[in-house]
Order: sequence, then C-alpha cells, then structure tokens
Amino acid sequence: MAQSSLNKKKEINADLIIHDAMILTMNPTHEVFADGAIAIINDRILEIGNTVDILEKYTANEIIDGSGKMIMPGLINTHTHVPMTIFRGYADDMPLHEWLYDYIFPVESEFVNSENVGLGTKLALAEMLRSGTTTFNDMYYHIEDIANVVDSVGMRAVLSESVIDFPAPNSPTPEDGLKTAEGLIKKWGNHPRITISVSAHALYSCSPELIQSAKALADKYNVPFNIHVAETRKEFDAILKDFGLTPVGYLDKLGVLGKNVIAAHGVHLTPEDISILAERGVSVAHNPECNMKLASGVAPVPELLKAGVKVGLGTDGVASNNDLDLFDEMNTAAILHKLNSNDPSVMDALTVVEMATMGGARVLGMENEIGSLEPGKKADILIIDMLQPHAHPIYNIYSLLVYSMKAADVESVIIDGKFVMRDRKILNLDEKALFARIENVAFRIREKNNLVSLQKPAKG
Amino acid sequence: MAQSSLNKKKEINADLIIHDAMILTMNPTHEVFADGAIAIINDRILEIGNTVDILEKYTANEIIDGSGKMIMPGLINTHTHVPMTIFRGYADDMPLHEWLYDYIFPVESEFVNSENVGLGTKLALAEMLRSGTTTFNDMYYHIEDIANVVDSVGMRAVLSESVIDFPAPNSPTPEDGLKTAEGLIKKWGNHPRITISVSAHALYSCSPELIQSAKALADKYNVPFNIHVAETRKEFDAILKDFGLTPVGYLDKLGVLGKNVIAAHGVHLTPEDISILAERGVSVAHNPECNMKLASGVAPVPELLKAGVKVGLGTDGVASNNDLDLFDEMNTAAILHKLNSNDPSVMDALTVVEMATMGGARVLGMENEIGSLEPGKKADILIIDMLQPHAHPIYNIYSLLVYSMKAADVESVIIDGKFVMRDRKILNLDEKALFARIENVAFRIREKNNLVSLQKPAKG
Repeated sequence: MAQSSLNKKKEINADLIIHDAMILTMNPTHEVFADGAIAIINDRILEIGNTVDILEKYTANEIIDGSGKMIMPGLINTHTHVPMTIFRGYADDMPLHEWLYDYIFPVESEFVNSENVGLGTKLALAEMLRSGTTTFNDMYYHIEDIANVVDSVGMRAVLSESVIDFPAPNSPTPEDGLKTAEGLIKKWGNHPRITISVSAHALYSCSPELIQSAKALADKYNVPFNIHVAETRKEFDAILKDFGLTPVGYLDKLGVLGKNVIAAHGVHLTPEDISILAERGVSVAHNPECNMKLASGVAPVPELLKAGVKVGLGTDGVASNNDLDLFDEMNTAAILHKLNSNDPSVMDALTVVEMATMGGARVLGMENEIGSLEPGKKADILIIDMLQPHAHPIYNIYSLLVYSMKAADVESVIIDGKFVMRDRKILNLDEKALFARIENVAFRIREKNNLVSLQKPAKG
Repeated sequence: MAQSSLNKKKEINADLIIHDAMILTMNPTHEVFADGAIAIINDRILEIGNTVDILEKYTANEIIDGSGKMIMPGLINTHTHVPMTIFRGYADDMPLHEWLYDYIFPVESEFVNSENVGLGTKLALAEMLRSGTTTFNDMYYHIEDIANVVDSVGMRAVLSESVIDFPAPNSPTPEDGLKTAEGLIKKWGNHPRITISVSAHALYSCSPELIQSAKALADKYNVPFNIHVAETRKEFDAILKDFGLTPVGYLDKLGVLGKNVIAAHGVHLTPEDISILAERGVSVAHNPECNMKLASGVAPVPELLKAGVKVGLGTDGVASNNDLDLFDEMNTAAILHKLNSNDPSVMDALTVVEMATMGGARVLGMENEIGSLEPGKKADILIIDMLQPHAHPIYNIYSLLVYSMKAADVESVIIDGKFVMRDRKILNLDEKALFARIENVAFRIREKNNLVSLQKPAKG
C-alpha cells in the first residue's frame, strides 16, 4: 500500500474493503486483478480496482487483508432439490427409473414433511456454502419450509413448488400445488434474496394440461418455470412413441417454451431440438455428474453453447450425485465434454467458470444482479484460500479453478453484502447439532425400510 | 468404554490406540466396525476390534479418541509423475501429442533438474498427504532427488527411473538411465518405505531393445516395470500400422509382459488384449480424469476386472489432471464407467474403494503389506473427519466415500506407524515457504516462454 493513501483525505466510507487479493471479476472482458481490492456498501459492490487505487479512494467500517486469497463471484447452482440431502446415499448404483419409482418416490411420500424438509435444507445450505455456492435454483415440495431456512441462513435462491400427477407430500392434487405456489409467490414477492416460482416435474409425470397450467402461472408472475426435459433415452423414446415428437418438440407443441423456461438436463436432444431451444430463448441446467452416475447420457453442451442457448451448471439433488459441490461439477463438465467430443480443446476452463457464474445468472434471469463482480451488482462473493499445495503454481487462474481447486478452499462467503460463512464457520447454523438430527431421520428411514447400517442413532 | 477395562490388568503395551471410531478395514470380508479401535505397535497394526475389546486388552503410549472420525487404509496412487507439479496448469485444453511434444517435452528438457525435481516432489507430497494418499508409484527422472524427499517427509513409494529414446534430463543416453536405475536399486534396497524400480516411457518413444533391456533389469531385481500402454487411439493405430499388432500384442511379442508389469492407462484394448493381460498377470493403472481431460478414451475397466486383471487407480502427473486427488478419481471412476457402459450398476462404490486400496496394493505387488487394515500389516492409515455436511446421513459408507466425501476430509495420516500429517498440518514440510519457491520456478518458466501471468515472483 502506498504511503500517500494514509495521508490523503478519503471521500467515501464503505462497509467492507478486502485488499491485496487476486480478483477474478467474470465481467464482460473477464478482467482479473493480480493485486486487487473490492469495496462493498450495504448489499452491493461499490468498486473494484487495484489495491492502491481503492485504498486511496475509500475507507470502510471493516478492512480485510486479502493476501494469499482469491476473490471471485459466488457459484450458481441452476438445478437441485435441496431437501433430498436426507436421502444422500440411500440408493445408489442403479438406473434412474428404478431409483425414482422403487426407492425415491416411496420414501418421499413417507418422509417428506415440513420438519424433514427444513432439516434437509439446513444440511444442504451448509454444504453449499462450504463449497462456494451463493445462489441455487430448487424444485421440490413444502417450499415455504425451504424459504424460511434460506431466509435465516442468508443465502439467495429461486424456489419452485413442484407439481406432479399424483399426490405430492404437501398437495393432495396438482391443483393444490399450483394454489400453494401462487400464494407463496405473492407472499414472498418482496424478499431481497428469495424468488418463488413454479415447476412441473417432467413430461412423463405431468399431463399436458398440468404443464400448461404451471407455465401459465409462472408467466402470470414473470418467474422462472422449471421442468425436467429429455433426461433419459427411455423418456425420449416414450414421448417419441406416444406422440411422434421429441420431448422438446412436444413441449413446443404445448406452447410452453419461452425465455423463463429452465429445462433441467436436456441430455437427449436432436439438432432440431437445439434450434428450437435457441429460438425460444429456453435455458438448460446441465448436471454432468448426475447424468453420468445414472448413466443417462451426455448433454450436447458444446452444441448448445454454439447455438446460443443459455446453459448453467447444476448438481441435481444429492440423492443422485451425491453432493452439492459445484467445484467438482466444473471439473467434470470440462473433462466429460472433452472425452465425449473426442476433442480436448472443447469446454476450456474459462468457458466452464463462465457457465458456473454468469451462465447460471442468465439461466435464472438474474444476470443484471449476480454472476460477476461489477460495481452496482449484488455483493455475492467467495474468498478463497490459495495457500494450498494444489493451488500452485499459478499459470492460468481459470485452469487452476476448474482442474485443481476444491470446494474446501472456499474460506469465506459473502451474500448480499453480509458474511454467511467466515473462516469455514457458518454463521447462522449449528452444524454439529444438525448432523445428529439428520442421523436420527436417517435412522427412522432405515428402520422403516429394514435397512441395517453402521450408524447408531445419535443424540439430538 | 466399560468400567471393567479400567480395573483389569492390561497385558500388552501398544504405541498408539485410536478408539470409538468407525473403521473401514477393506480386509477380505470387508469388515466394518461401527465403534472400533485400532492398536498400532512400531510400524505395524497390532489388532483391530470393537472399542471395548481393544481397550480391555491393550494400553498404549498414546490413546486418541476417534469419535466423529472414520479410519481407513491409506489410498494408493498407481501411476503418477510427482515432480511435474511444477507444470500444473502450464498447458491445458489440448490433445496429448501436442501437449507432450510441443509443451511438456521442451519445458522438461530445460527445467527438470535436481533442484526442481526436489521442489516439485515436495509440493506433490504435500498435496497427496492432504488428499489421503499414503503410497504412490512414480515414473520420472532424477529419482534419487524424489527418493530423498519421500524419505524425509515419511511417505511410501515405488520410484522408477524412466528411460526413453532421447536424452533425458539426467541421462544423455537410455543406457545411462538404466545404469542409474540399477545403481539406485542397489543403494536403496533396504529402505523400509521406498522401492526403486525401472520404467520404459512408452511404445512410441522407446525402441523394442530398450523396452526389453529395461524389463530385464526389473526382472533381475524383482521390482515393478512400468510402461505407458495404449493411452491414445493414435498410439494404437500407429503400432497397428507399423507392426500389424496392437500395443499389448506388440509387448507380448517382445516377451516383456509378466507379473511385475504395470501398464499405465490401457485405454485402447481389444478383447484379445484383455485376455493376454489376464494370462500374463499384468496390472493396469487406471487414470480416468487424465484420460477424459486429454480425450484419450475410456479404459475397459469393468471388462478388465471381469477377466481378473489387477487394476489400481492413478492420477497421472498433475500436468494432465491437474491434481493428485484420489478422492476425485474414485468419484470419476465410478460415474465414468456407468456412463460408458450405459449401466449405472457397474463400478459400484465398494468396487471403487477396493481399487483405490487393495487393488493398488496388488498392482504394486505389496498386497501382503498395505492396502487394508489387518493385524500384521503396515500401519498406513487415514483418520477422516466425519463432522462435515456432505458426510451425512450415513446409509452406506462406501457410497459416502466415493460419491460425497472429499480429499479435505482427511484430517490425519499415519504411514509406517508414524503421523506424517496431523490435524491438517504436514509435520515434515514447511508448506508456505515451499509455495513461494514453487512460484519462483513458475516465474522463470513463464519468463523463458514469454508467458504473462497474474502472479508476481514471490520472495523465498
């Protein structure tokens, strides 16, 4: 820091300055500061620049030395089901339809209730913060219980009540689900970090009319509309057999494709499907690890990007991943498409980091608020510890992030200008007590399903 | 702990007991203790059992409460080039042959020297310990510099001097390389943790005679013989064109396939190749992330295992991965083969953990010494922190390890009965000073190659 900065009068007082850090902005020119500083006021970024300039111009209530740290935008998870953490590892190493119909749907109908959704959400939020996710897009049930936890922990989320053609945990009929969604959209309309939206589960589990009603509700309030699309070959073949259309063609015929639509997966797409998605402005949430684990296939992401389709990265629920770690997902996305394209130059590291940040923001329609570090945008920020062996040497910061760095390198997380994790401590959650309560839920699930396990019921 | 254990006379004094932990033995019956204890004396495991039994039978110089921890065998990396950490992220997003001949070989010829090999090895060892690797199998140059670091840090390794048909960093001719290897095999013959062996780089970079001489040297001293085999389609096609044989067929014709041979990669194999490997007792070191990143292909691991071929897991060097993290590699191995086989039941979690532990031990011919926690075996042990959100709930411990848990969950590492990392502190290395020295090497590499970078030269 130049001596002059100590003498000169500073005009503006910020809430927080972090200086002497490497800063990855992900702004339109992908600006990187080797020795940068960032000033934050209230919930927003005031300015980013070289340390010497920022420290000359601003003072702040709190000033943090960022030596040995990297600062970057928070990661955005565009597809998940956070309460499903309670089913992590409950059923693995089997195909999607068996997994879903024989294991997940039955256990969901019994154990997805208000209390367990709250518990599962807390566990998911702890995991997401520890792995650098600041915003997530969820589709599930009991979403007000999710919203309450998101509110108290301090994360940012788009939460959609999911409708489906059989009784859902908190809705005897899909019409009840839509009514619930509409009520919550109105009730939470002014929350600074939470957007309520609506989802239809999938083409194979929702009638055409239900998909159209759900989409109409999303349009009425100008919120995102989520739906699982073309996840498996089985789904693709069934829609083709029943309707003579691809899943994307079918949705297009229903008239439900548009700019607020987030198609989760998009694995089995024809070139014509890709053109339709591009033309209608539909987004795709790409979940490479889940698609690999369930042997669903590989989404044509390089082709989608080439066609101008907005693509974000997602983990899907932990019951099919089995974690919420977007650092892992970035690495897998980069190397999977190299293998699948037989071309190691596709999905270079910068493209992947863009997908996990600005790409995700565009998918959620929030590109003016989050996804990059720019003055005026929300202060959703990761502080990353670079004093790790796998973080050296530093030739290319994007390569390092995608191919070497880990979730656990995230040291602190700021959302909406406030610390929510600081030095690996999550500020608004008692994790240890939570783990005990989660194990008790798992104990009851095992008992009910005659599963043996290592873990004794915990106290809590 | 039962009260009686405090009164009863204990007969045997151990060096270390860890109790009240979950213990994953990976012994032949895959025994798991929910509330287990392990007693260690000198460099070996004395006994493993339920906490109450072990504490009744033994006392120890140090007794550690393992509540909230899992204890498992150290992971085994069967293929890497540890000094290449200095090239981490130097050249990414390009094919193997361009990467190797245009980037790696030139920079190796200039920067691979005794000092940089030592530095790169230190960085690699820090990274491996932090990610739970206790034994690794390396092929590189200047291996006595590697051996000296392995010795002082306290790891276990098989280190092979690599020969190749052009001047290597420390050998003007391959004959010099073989002479160096033989001298080191004799000199280090009695080291408790280090085995010196010999490698031929690859079929396309070594003459048939050189491959045969290197193999003969390995046989003379009964040490492993490493060679890169059938890594790319380009290699497969070239050998087929020049010799009318597959790479495996070619090596078999040279008479060099046998029980001490470790074939790195084995991506492009015919069913007949797999039969030959099984018949000759050859091992395969599987490096899924490197093979994906370079778009080399997918090794037929389920088929190799079915044929009875010994398969271990590896990372390859960080210049093509770009890390040494076997937790990541386990996850990728599990989900890659599900996708590639179009069958989510292949490579279940237990199979993958077996590959990273006992499988690796068999590849190195060390299955009687390491790879599982059993009385009489070497005490190479990980203590893993389970108080992490992604480690709950615990339905299936193998699923949790492969699909959810992370390198950073490894809290402490014991090798040969001694702590080498304790509570995330590596005991025999000054990491912070090391990072600065590594960045200075990287600075010189960039300067020489006219690369710009963010990172200023560090002091050190």
